[in-house]
Amino acid sequence: MKKVLILGSTGSIGINTLNVIRNFPGEFEITALTVNTRIDLLEPQIYEFNPKAVVVKDEKLGQELKRRISGKCEVLVGHEGLIEAASKLDYDIFVGAMVGFSGLAPTLEAIKRGKIITLANKETLVVAGELVTRLCKENNAKLIPIDSEHSAIFQCMEGEKRNQVEKIILTASGGPFLNKSKSYFDNVSVKEALNHPNWKMGNKITIDSASMMNKGLEIIEAYWLFGIEKKKIDVVIHPQSIIHSMVQFIDGSIKAQMGLPDMKLPIQYALTYPERLPNDFSRIDLAQIGTLNFFSPDTEKFECLKLAYGALEAGGTAPCILNAANEVAVDKFLKGKIKFSQIPHLITNALEKIENHKSPDVKTIFECDKETREYVLALG
Amino acid sequence: MKKVLILGSTGSIGINTLNVIRNFPGEFEITALTVNTRIDLLEPQIYEFNPKAVVVKDEKLGQELKRRISGKCEVLVGHEGLIEAASKLDYDIFVGAMVGFSGLAPTLEAIKRGKIITLANKETLVVAGELVTRLCKENNAKLIPIDSEHSAIFQCMEGEKRNQVEKIILTASGGPFLNKSKSYFDNVSVKEALNHPNWKMGNKITIDSASMMNKGLEIIEAYWLFGIEKKKIDVVIHPQSIIHSMVQFIDGSIKAQMGLPDMKLPIQYALTYPERLPNDFSRIDLAQIGTLNFFSPDTEKFECLKLAYGALEAGGTAPCILNAANEVAVDKFLKGKIKFSQIPHLITNALEKIENHKSPDVKTIFECDKETREYVLALG
Repeated sequence: MKKVLILGSTGSIGINTLNVIRNFPGEFEITALTVNTRIDLLEPQIYEFNPKAVVVKDEKLGQELKRRISGKCEVLVGHEGLIEAASKLDYDIFVGAMVGFSGLAPTLEAIKRGKIITLANKETLVVAGELVTRLCKENNAKLIPIDSEHSAIFQCMEGEKRNQVEKIILTASGGPFLNKSKSYFDNVSVKEALNHPNWKMGNKITIDSASMMNKGLEIIEAYWLFGIEKKKIDVVIHPQSIIHSMVQFIDGSIKAQMGLPDMKLPIQYALTYPERLPNDFSRIDLAQIGTLNFFSPDTEKFECLKLAYGALEAGGTAPCILNAANEVAVDKFLKGKIKFSQIPHLITNALEKIENHKSPDVKTIFECDKETREYVLALG
Repeated sequence: MKKVLILGSTGSIGINTLNVIRNFPGEFEITALTVNTRIDLLEPQIYEFNPKAVVVKDEKLGQELKRRISGKCEVLVGHEGLIEAASKLDYDIFVGAMVGFSGLAPTLEAIKRGKIITLANKETLVVAGELVTRLCKENNAKLIPIDSEHSAIFQCMEGEKRNQVEKIILTASGGPFLNKSKSYFDNVSVKEALNHPNWKMGNKITIDSASMMNKGLEIIEAYWLFGIEKKKIDVVIHPQSIIHSMVQFIDGSIKAQMGLPDMKLPIQYALTYPERLPNDFSRIDLAQIGTLNFFSPDTEKFECLKLAYGALEAGGTAPCILNAANEVAVDKFLKGKIKFSQIPHLITNALEKIENHKSPDVKTIFECDKETREYVLALG
């Protein structure tokens, strides 16, 4: 039995991870589940999966949960609880399924212990890719992506040599505004932006998909995961989200990985790697799907994509600034405080004003993240 | 330097094999080249590639070549010459690039010597799959497909476990008559049937593509190459011939291999396997291609496909009968003796009339092949 710690068990990826684990009763046991606030969703997970411990980041809600479940399992609280769980508990696989930047510190703890790190939390690699990949190498921690695109690339790399890769081609659905003009971005409602054509995901990532910042973050993530030159990561729009990404080799051959848009597939692959286990998920019927389309991305319209390429090129803390500014900007948009079209403006502003530190250590990254958030929060 | 013997060096695959070898001056040397009759094309190949020996199957033409090149290299002749080259000469890689059934005997000689067998000649596996795969295992001969579809499957299998394959999905262009009705097959001209939309190939295989017998033969070929259950080999029509074939795994994930329709790509892969070497072949631009389409094949219209599934299911010498009857029928069509629509009728007739021998040895296969050819040749 592989022992699993899920960081963020009540989010979209966390719930799907438990859906996968439910399918394989003899394969996995849950060491710990963590949440920020959603103890109402965590409670039934505790009774079904019997974790040794849970962590609630909100301390007050953590105390409440402790009262409710009266000793059913250990309840840790706060950021310290997250660090304690990641650094002390007995597990084999760390599932990084938290939203945004907050997953970095516990992920680093898991890496230092040489665990299998299955990562849906792309911000970890975006803001601290250099540090994370170095620590993984030093501590012999295996990094397996859960993002469907990176899982696709990871799968296409199996049995191939890294130095024979010519190009990575990330596919992007193009989101709900693929066929809208740029001027439309001034009047986009939150509801429209949350209406993704293919994927059912959390709010933050859904907005990132609409602005294509999600693809921008994935470019940076791919750079760190696969150690490929920055110029060799391409994006192609593929509205049906059937081909999840591709790898082109030096002989011109391309391998693509396909699947229905269901996160359970890359999650299961990451949990069972290097094996594949049978499941009864729906299968692709290409004749029924009929058509797969491809377009070049419009980086004039989707400015966030261009900003991400720029931040990757700049290096240092630029991706950290990009990410933090984006998180705050998206939050502002979701709260109705700014227009959809202002998201890239706030990020551009932050990238211009906040100093870029090269080869940052953890402390510098946290400081840069904090500084950026405060700066963007204070912007009109 | 890998030493290469090319069986059929003046055909489409043979010429492309030499085109690939020309690109890598330090990697390969030519041990021998063989042709049936085309000594005019063979002669410049001799001067460019300096083989130790050549074989001309037509004895008279072989004598003529010998006079022409006056000792430049050894010239063997006839079927015996082919066997001698395959069984005696010093080479590492055997390229089976001959058309039709005639490649079997020399291929068996190469297998018995434990050579690397790169096989474009699908008939070898169609008629003698059981024997060939058993001999390969016994003699530790590695079989690498050159057919673009099977190369795609082979590439998608790399790094994966055979017992975790759920399904093989062969793509088919659908040929020039994809959008014609079945009644149209009564009046198809040879010229129309030879006008393949995507691939430039020899006459026999181009007609097989038009009738979809080519895909039928490939189903049987895939069965022997990849040792998968007969019911787990599917065909999907994909008119653009960009995805060359796919493998679906037990977790529902699909890997596809893509490339421009250029046989140099699978030939190079087979010659350099397990390495990939860089080349300057044109690359795929999916955004420019724009659309990939998929349909279910119409087995009522393309009867040859149904006949091939039936022959695979029947086993024994049924695929040998299918193949021999098809070769004769295609030849009759090319000579204007029968209609395009009669090709499947002649094959059906042969499959009904000629006895099926189970687990045939070489002798039985040759006899069955001969009997079938004579039978179909004599048919109205």
